[in-house]
Amino acid sequence: MAVLWSVVVLSFVHQVVSIGFPDCKNGPLKNNAVCDIDKDPLARATALIDLLTIEEKINNTGSTSPGVPRLGLPDYQWWQEALHGVASGHGVNFSASGDFSYATSFPQPITMGAAFDDDLINAVATVISIEARAFNNAKRAGLDFWTPNINPFRDPRWGRGQETPGEDPYHLASYVHALIDGLQGGYDPKYKRIIATCKHFAGYDMETWAGNYRFQFNAEISTQDMVEFFLPPFQSCARDSNVGAIMCSYGAMRGTPTCADPYLLQTVLREHWGWTKEQQWVVSDCDAVQNIYLPHMHESTREAAAADALNAGCDVNCGTYYQNHLPAAYAQGLINETTVTQALIRQYSSLIRAGYFDPPENQPYRSLGWSDVATPHAQEVAYKAAVEGIVLLKNDGLLPLNIDSYDSIALLGDDWANATTQMQGNYAGIAEFLHGPLYAAQQLNKTINYAAGLGRWRDPTTNNWLPVWDAANKSDIIIFAGGIDNSEEGEGMDRMVIGWQGAQLDMIGQLAMMGKPMIVLQMGAGSMDNSPILQNPNISALMWGGYPGQDGGTALFDLILGKQSPAGRLPYTQYPANYIAQVPMTDMSLRPGPNNPGRTYRWYTGKPIAEFGFGLHYTNFSVSIPSKAIHGSSFDIAQLMRSCNGHHGYGSSSVKYKDQCPFAQIPVHVKNIGDSVTSDYVTLGFLAGSFGPRPYPKKTLVSYQRLHDIAPGDTATATLNITLGSLSRVAENGDRVLYPGEYEMLIDVQPMAKLAFRLTGELVTLDKWPQPPKAKNQTSDGYFVGGWGSTGDIGAVGGEEEVLNI
Amino acid sequence: MAVLWSVVVLSFVHQVVSIGFPDCKNGPLKNNAVCDIDKDPLARATALIDLLTIEEKINNTGSTSPGVPRLGLPDYQWWQEALHGVASGHGVNFSASGDFSYATSFPQPITMGAAFDDDLINAVATVISIEARAFNNAKRAGLDFWTPNINPFRDPRWGRGQETPGEDPYHLASYVHALIDGLQGGYDPKYKRIIATCKHFAGYDMETWAGNYRFQFNAEISTQDMVEFFLPPFQSCARDSNVGAIMCSYGAMRGTPTCADPYLLQTVLREHWGWTKEQQWVVSDCDAVQNIYLPHMHESTREAAAADALNAGCDVNCGTYYQNHLPAAYAQGLINETTVTQALIRQYSSLIRAGYFDPPENQPYRSLGWSDVATPHAQEVAYKAAVEGIVLLKNDGLLPLNIDSYDSIALLGDDWANATTQMQGNYAGIAEFLHGPLYAAQQLNKTINYAAGLGRWRDPTTNNWLPVWDAANKSDIIIFAGGIDNSEEGEGMDRMVIGWQGAQLDMIGQLAMMGKPMIVLQMGAGSMDNSPILQNPNISALMWGGYPGQDGGTALFDLILGKQSPAGRLPYTQYPANYIAQVPMTDMSLRPGPNNPGRTYRWYTGKPIAEFGFGLHYTNFSVSIPSKAIHGSSFDIAQLMRSCNGHHGYGSSSVKYKDQCPFAQIPVHVKNIGDSVTSDYVTLGFLAGSFGPRPYPKKTLVSYQRLHDIAPGDTATATLNITLGSLSRVAENGDRVLYPGEYEMLIDVQPMAKLAFRLTGELVTLDKWPQPPKAKNQTSDGYFVGGWGSTGDIGAVGGEEEVLNI
Repeated sequence: MAVLWSVVVLSFVHQVVSIGFPDCKNGPLKNNAVCDIDKDPLARATALIDLLTIEEKINNTGSTSPGVPRLGLPDYQWWQEALHGVASGHGVNFSASGDFSYATSFPQPITMGAAFDDDLINAVATVISIEARAFNNAKRAGLDFWTPNINPFRDPRWGRGQETPGEDPYHLASYVHALIDGLQGGYDPKYKRIIATCKHFAGYDMETWAGNYRFQFNAEISTQDMVEFFLPPFQSCARDSNVGAIMCSYGAMRGTPTCADPYLLQTVLREHWGWTKEQQWVVSDCDAVQNIYLPHMHESTREAAAADALNAGCDVNCGTYYQNHLPAAYAQGLINETTVTQALIRQYSSLIRAGYFDPPENQPYRSLGWSDVATPHAQEVAYKAAVEGIVLLKNDGLLPLNIDSYDSIALLGDDWANATTQMQGNYAGIAEFLHGPLYAAQQLNKTINYAAGLGRWRDPTTNNWLPVWDAANKSDIIIFAGGIDNSEEGEGMDRMVIGWQGAQLDMIGQLAMMGKPMIVLQMGAGSMDNSPILQNPNISALMWGGYPGQDGGTALFDLILGKQSPAGRLPYTQYPANYIAQVPMTDMSLRPGPNNPGRTYRWYTGKPIAEFGFGLHYTNFSVSIPSKAIHGSSFDIAQLMRSCNGHHGYGSSSVKYKDQCPFAQIPVHVKNIGDSVTSDYVTLGFLAGSFGPRPYPKKTLVSYQRLHDIAPGDTATATLNITLGSLSRVAENGDRVLYPGEYEMLIDVQPMAKLAFRLTGELVTLDKWPQPPKAKNQTSDGYFVGGWGSTGDIGAVGGEEEVLNI
Repeated sequence: MAVLWSVVVLSFVHQVVSIGFPDCKNGPLKNNAVCDIDKDPLARATALIDLLTIEEKINNTGSTSPGVPRLGLPDYQWWQEALHGVASGHGVNFSASGDFSYATSFPQPITMGAAFDDDLINAVATVISIEARAFNNAKRAGLDFWTPNINPFRDPRWGRGQETPGEDPYHLASYVHALIDGLQGGYDPKYKRIIATCKHFAGYDMETWAGNYRFQFNAEISTQDMVEFFLPPFQSCARDSNVGAIMCSYGAMRGTPTCADPYLLQTVLREHWGWTKEQQWVVSDCDAVQNIYLPHMHESTREAAAADALNAGCDVNCGTYYQNHLPAAYAQGLINETTVTQALIRQYSSLIRAGYFDPPENQPYRSLGWSDVATPHAQEVAYKAAVEGIVLLKNDGLLPLNIDSYDSIALLGDDWANATTQMQGNYAGIAEFLHGPLYAAQQLNKTINYAAGLGRWRDPTTNNWLPVWDAANKSDIIIFAGGIDNSEEGEGMDRMVIGWQGAQLDMIGQLAMMGKPMIVLQMGAGSMDNSPILQNPNISALMWGGYPGQDGGTALFDLILGKQSPAGRLPYTQYPANYIAQVPMTDMSLRPGPNNPGRTYRWYTGKPIAEFGFGLHYTNFSVSIPSKAIHGSSFDIAQLMRSCNGHHGYGSSSVKYKDQCPFAQIPVHVKNIGDSVTSDYVTLGFLAGSFGPRPYPKKTLVSYQRLHDIAPGDTATATLNITLGSLSRVAENGDRVLYPGEYEMLIDVQPMAKLAFRLTGELVTLDKWPQPPKAKNQTSDGYFVGGWGSTGDIGAVGGEEEVLNI
């Protein structure tokens, strides 16, 4: 082993990475093709990597690349984060003060998802990538960022649901398509602004549950659910948006750790989705390669675990397992140099695409600097994202609040009342300011009686309640800001309950008994059972804010006061509190079954507290679909396919895949029939009906569009783009199929307009799904076995213990 | 409601409690009987409380008593902690520097339990109470302390198992008997040193599991398990040790929140156990009264919840629920003044017993001061407690370490290698010093290569491993200090897994591959599956340290070096890692059954990794029981009872209860047959056999004694005290019964001596158990329903939702 250690130690002299650019003018590489901007990126990367010895290659397979000093190839940090703004840590280095001491901090994706506004998302992503590139130019960050987290929010307990736009795969696919364009600066630009990374591929949406944990969990997912629910956002990233990188996840799916799964990383991702550009690479989640050895116990040696990942198509290892163990794997013949070379070509091609080896004057982004960070425009987008994403869940008419009627406001609750970094959630950067509810209230020129004695819900709290009663007694109106935050939901920590906790609910109830006007703000991402608040006649209004970012308090108060109008929609189902007793978190299936009442608005058989897509306004709308929206009420499938194959598109440059074939652009007229409030309106288009395999989902979101600033009496028109893919269903084998049957288009959650039509003729397969290998049991059935409710056969666990030799 | 608020607000002007003594010389009370030291405590307390109005009484039912200013009755803080030394927070006020800036910090009870040395526990408790009283005299603490936590450590996942001495109810009962004598200054002294509080009564041993949480959980416990396992430590506290206070718990048992359960608080505690001294009071866990309303939903109004608790016999409410809601409960006729008066008489009688109203010169403890805190003796006891509690689990002969053979030591691992406050665990105070492993290693005049790059197991870590390899490469011997700490196990947080985590185990394995001598220190309380370390031939030794307190590092190194000899024994069963997949944490039953392989060494049907009571030494012992240890091999039950009723005891002053009737004092000769090492030896006496109801436990601990400093060649004799209670079993209805049958006494875990005998004749009931009311379903089956694996009928949960009106 001693030789191995020394290799590692020698190559990592620099713990701090310099983030320099290679010197193509005077450095040792100046005559190498990598510095020749007239050559294509593949040729350039190949020329560079061909210079490296196998030891040098392996030394550069980790997230911290030492580079090759003899060649003037700088060290490089591949790990940057930018989930909702340039984020602290890893390769990003904020300065202590002055220039580059902050960046724009947007709401968490769960709040931005609630805006249902892809243009907004594109604008946000554009700001983020511009700021990221400015940090890179200042040598304060690398060029690739491990964002977005695009796993659908499957179970309300998931601690990282806040990082996602919500539960619906179509919504996520559409959102991420707009996001990646903004982040990368186009879908296939000459120069990428930054390299985005869609994560976590795939089936990762649980941190810890009853003894199961993300590093060890094996998700048993049916092929149908995989294609229908877990993969569409990744298909959008890889097939349709040309994302630069994909991150494989900690967990195993159907018995194989995802980072060691050639079916996922090669068959599905690269072959089926055609994600084969030379600059596209797969990175492991951090230490996910180590996890293949322990705790997955997928291989009995560390070398075999590392080799499995590399051979499966995982190009970069966040961690040091490749660097530590690929030398021995190579010596043992478990990997060959070609595979290592290919991985490095992919990595460095992506840097070439970002202009890393090019003269600064040749590219559009090298001039970005501090003046491009946190600009007034950027701050305005962050504010707007919060306003658009906040959802009004209850209003008895108190809102918009006539503030002139009140002299004093009690602002109460837990830490949310005076939230600062709490508004950012996780994976955040440093914001220029963090304006919470208390800050916003203090701008009102009213008496603010603030008391936040509640503490966290886990602790005994009534000893701290006295200042709350006092503040409430003194005030004309009560605003309670509570809910959950990153102490209840976060990375490595799923939520334990999905109801309001006893202590908060008890205080809310007692405050409501005082009979004063009262507003509750429900903060935090995860679904909560709001029924006691919705039912309490003494509580006038309930507003959901998620994690609204740097201007969250201002956005909340502007909405309360009617300076802005709420039009956000819940991006997930709010389940009853006892939902979590009905289904183990480890049950991955979406459709209802024994011990599973179904998941998401498509399949949940119970009555939700609030539906996916629900959200109130300060005005009323009427919605209509013109009678000639589609040409007729019955469509022959064969004819639809012929139309697509013809002049419309499929086979042409605009439609590459059959599911993208157009069906109709349905106009939806939305009229503001109120008399005083201008408001946005989110046009949600669902499909319901009887077509495809049973059971039928209740409905399926197939298109959405946010309309802006509709004045009283005015009408705006949304155009819902419906493709043949929109009409399709997924068969048990994963094929996406266009079925004959009865269809109905429904506009909004409680449908405000409908459009019925029929498909006839023979079914057509739009996408033939590559069949997965037969699921095998995960190797680990001994030491690292999951807990209660794990997918293993509980009855068999008591059998022979596998000996774990470390 | 406004009236109620104002009552509360007015009465709590002082948020900071002054901890003054009442002025019986010149104050308004000077002529009241409470100041008359010649009267008995009940009369004195009654005279005081009779002066209070009902409002004043209710205002003083919380943990923070405002007192009665008009009477000169000072405010008082009832909440102090001293689990393993005077603890920070609540009523205890450490100074920032100088006098009273620290106190002696002993190991956590789990480590002290491993010493199996009741004399040690008594000495520790004596130090704690002396220091506590010194703090009280300096007006830095009250007189009552909410210690010990004496719930048996039922499930290895429990985050608060660290606070307990282990899993065995006899062990806990014996331990706590010695502890309370030390804390209170005798079992019924004229002046109590402090007032101890046994908690949490009862059936509380789970924080969070799969949606169930302590504030809401309803424990379904059979009467047999209740009497046999959950209650013996409390019987020891209440019936046999005259503890001053008992704390009821957060949870419900058999459908009733314990703080609202008259069966527990009146029938069992006061009537059956005779815990009826006027100065004995029950306090709720903090906000456990609030929890009766939410989340238990045991009553539909807050007033009824508070009234339930008071009427059930909960005298003091940690929190403000009594003070807030008893006024309305009184107005509604839900409580009467007599009950409030009785509660206050109990509280203030206990202060009278502590000399609170007496002239300082009359009592032994008022002169204790700073010079009595953290004395050399106290520090020595803390060190000794760590040495005695540390358990040697593996040794291939490397230990005791010949340190002269090594020039350099690699001290590696996670934060434990340089532990400071980590060594204290939870409920700790401020220590004068915290000497961890690194400190101890640095005293050795060797080259210490320290690296703690592992980080916490939850995080990706391999990026931080480089300094570890470097340190290991440079060293002659490797000591790895790891395990778990309060970031994995703690209040409000049960453990998710009970194996070593992948990252730590991976590093341990790779270090072991270097082929250097290697020692692993397993720190933290909860049981861990050590099999990969036990099986690895490259790891020479494994030592368990728990939370060893202020001198933990020194104790560990003195044991490693042979300056001290290990003789601690595991106070719980170390289960295989997959144990947690075999039984939900919510399954309270001890006996094996479907989905339950049995709990504790008495009932677990699998093969443990290390048994309860296991521990290695640096020498060998031979053990023998003399042939005349007991008079004969067959005993007639009726004759045994007659002997007890006669001159021996039962009915006499020395034996008050039949289970205390003596059977035998069994001498056990223990000879050190090694040739070089002097060592302690813990004599464990188990009973096995076929008697009483089936199934039979594997064995049962009935007596233990730690023998000290047995030199090579020397013999020491333990005396195991066996009562008729020792021989009894618990029937399904909870009766403790002496059964005819075959008995075998086993000395040590792998028996080193045995003694067989037989009981004949008719069974005799030693203790007739008061039958519980029929278990009812907990009120809460709607909003606050437990999660997966809760005791409710999962199938029924999907039914009608209960409306929660707050």
